Amino acid sequence: MLPLAIDVMSGDHEPREYVAGAQRALADDAQLRLLLVGEPKLLEAELAGWGAPLRERAQPVPASQVVSMDEKPREAIRRKKDSSMRIAIDLVHEGRASAAVSAGNTGALTAIAHFVLRTLPGVERAAIISALPAAHGLTQMLDLGANTKATPEQLRQFGAMGAIIARDVYGLASPRIGLLNIGEEDIKGHEVVQAAHALLAASGLNYVGFVEGDDIFSGDVDVVVTDGFTGNVALKTMEGLAALIAARLRAEFDSSAFARLAGAIARPVLRRAAAGLDPRRYNGACMVGLGGIVVKSHGRADGVAFARAIGTAALAVRQDLTKHIAQAMQAQGAGS
Amino acid sequence: MLPLAIDVMSGDHEPREYVAGAQRALADDAQLRLLLVGEPKLLEAELAGWGAPLRERAQPVPASQVVSMDEKPREAIRRKKDSSMRIAIDLVHEGRASAAVSAGNTGALTAIAHFVLRTLPGVERAAIISALPAAHGLTQMLDLGANTKATPEQLRQFGAMGAIIARDVYGLASPRIGLLNIGEEDIKGHEVVQAAHALLAASGLNYVGFVEGDDIFSGDVDVVVTDGFTGNVALKTMEGLAALIAARLRAEFDSSAFARLAGAIARPVLRRAAAGLDPRRYNGACMVGLGGIVVKSHGRADGVAFARAIGTAALAVRQDLTKHIAQAMQAQGAGS
Repeated sequence: MLPLAIDVMSGDHEPREYVAGAQRALADDAQLRLLLVGEPKLLEAELAGWGAPLRERAQPVPASQVVSMDEKPREAIRRKKDSSMRIAIDLVHEGRASAAVSAGNTGALTAIAHFVLRTLPGVERAAIISALPAAHGLTQMLDLGANTKATPEQLRQFGAMGAIIARDVYGLASPRIGLLNIGEEDIKGHEVVQAAHALLAASGLNYVGFVEGDDIFSGDVDVVVTDGFTGNVALKTMEGLAALIAARLRAEFDSSAFARLAGAIARPVLRRAAAGLDPRRYNGACMVGLGGIVVKSHGRADGVAFARAIGTAALAVRQDLTKHIAQAMQAQGAGS
Repeated sequence: MLPLAIDVMSGDHEPREYVAGAQRALADDAQLRLLLVGEPKLLEAELAGWGAPLRERAQPVPASQVVSMDEKPREAIRRKKDSSMRIAIDLVHEGRASAAVSAGNTGALTAIAHFVLRTLPGVERAAIISALPAAHGLTQMLDLGANTKATPEQLRQFGAMGAIIARDVYGLASPRIGLLNIGEEDIKGHEVVQAAHALLAASGLNYVGFVEGDDIFSGDVDVVVTDGFTGNVALKTMEGLAALIAARLRAEFDSSAFARLAGAIARPVLRRAAAGLDPRRYNGACMVGLGGIVVKSHGRADGVAFARAIGTAALAVRQDLTKHIAQAMQAQGAGS
């Protein structure tokens, strides 16, 4: 496997947090090699503290610019050609890296990735996909925010790509695809979802029809398709609610001497329940449909979560995701 | 207070569940009187089991039809003039009831409510609003699904109505209004949210700008404004995640003898944490902007939750919600 290119400069944290995540990812995966793209002196200082076995698998790549979190996508393409984000994606394009990972600005990352890597034949727009915990295991959901809108045809393509990932990465023989709507009846929703519903029903995919927000978790569907606006709102809503529930539990288990005792006794059980739901475990959403793998880490991801995003990228590379999607989308194009 | 008109026939449950909810609401609130709208024989049979004190405050109103959960809104208006849903809303229009409550099909309820009650001056479309648990108490969120789309001007109106509810029903002096988007930076989102952002910024409301899905719960904002498609998806996503977390906790606390013991000890603490988050407590979303109060209960609401929806309607009546909204929207109209 070629090394992965890691943008250590972009995101809500200091670069050292992402460098620490890279270090953790290398420690977790002995086959992994990384190109750490960032400010040279910073990289030099951070890497100085690493032991030789990890240090040998991490090569610094200099970048003189950073794409800020509020940078406009077009400006990022035009003016940030020597940014860590751009260089990481360029390395994929040049065949020097097998995937790029960044916790930076989603809009800029999407724009640069489209500009440099181009979409695959049969794909109009790439989508961001992630696995989410569900009653039956995992649900794949896309688009989580690469685009602010989607046409019916793009939603159909998202369904096709989601099916490939559920099948080839997660091993489901015939993944069930649902289209997110505000009611399960065929008459519901606006004209875009209605038109996408018709396209998906005729697509040859195992399309089960409209699903609602609670079906992301119900286990009744393996892939949930939606536009990037709705998908991103749903994702952030989950994060917010999970944080609220965790905070309420902590507060109640700290509200009295008895509650603290009960909390101490219940802690291992609560930890196990939380482990399967920890958003950090699911960090690292793949941008799919491009001529190369780009993984978007949550901007607020800490080192643990950033390491997981790097792991997601490595998994996608090992599963040869780009080739699978390219073949399937070409076959679909030829068939239609 | 005039009685409330309760549609006991519509929703995912049998009518007896909604009748039981009505009974519970009457027991909880000694001032409450209800008109129970439904199939006469069914109502007679159910009411026969009630004690006299509650029975005296519940008057059956016959309806020969039911709006089904997949009925098209236009068909419901045209063909279901003697339905329990329509009659409940007619009773409000005729001044015989102070509010209508239904767990039926949201699309049909919205259409009939607009057709019969009309929107208030200065309001183009009614919106469904509900209080949701948040770090600081409650966040009001609208639209939760009355409309599948919203124009920028409609989103501005939703903000104005949400502000009135947060102020006049929930007592906040200057509620902070946020517009749901997929990034907090001013450049993010599609053209509808961009245009609504400009209108809200110029509205004189305490508008704090774009917020993301996690801000529904963060306490950084008191009112979250969005279109009915996005709002409904977010709401159902919350319900699904809460159910998944509850199921995981139950499974872990039943996974071994130690876990069951820990669960027994921790139960009162877990119950307290859950109580503040129980979606049944927040059941009953007001349709605001109409010439009368209509409360939408969750279709899957059980008796406990349906009673809560009736309580929400009673609160809105007591707070004279329609008058407050009418005055404020007229003042806005006059000012613009």
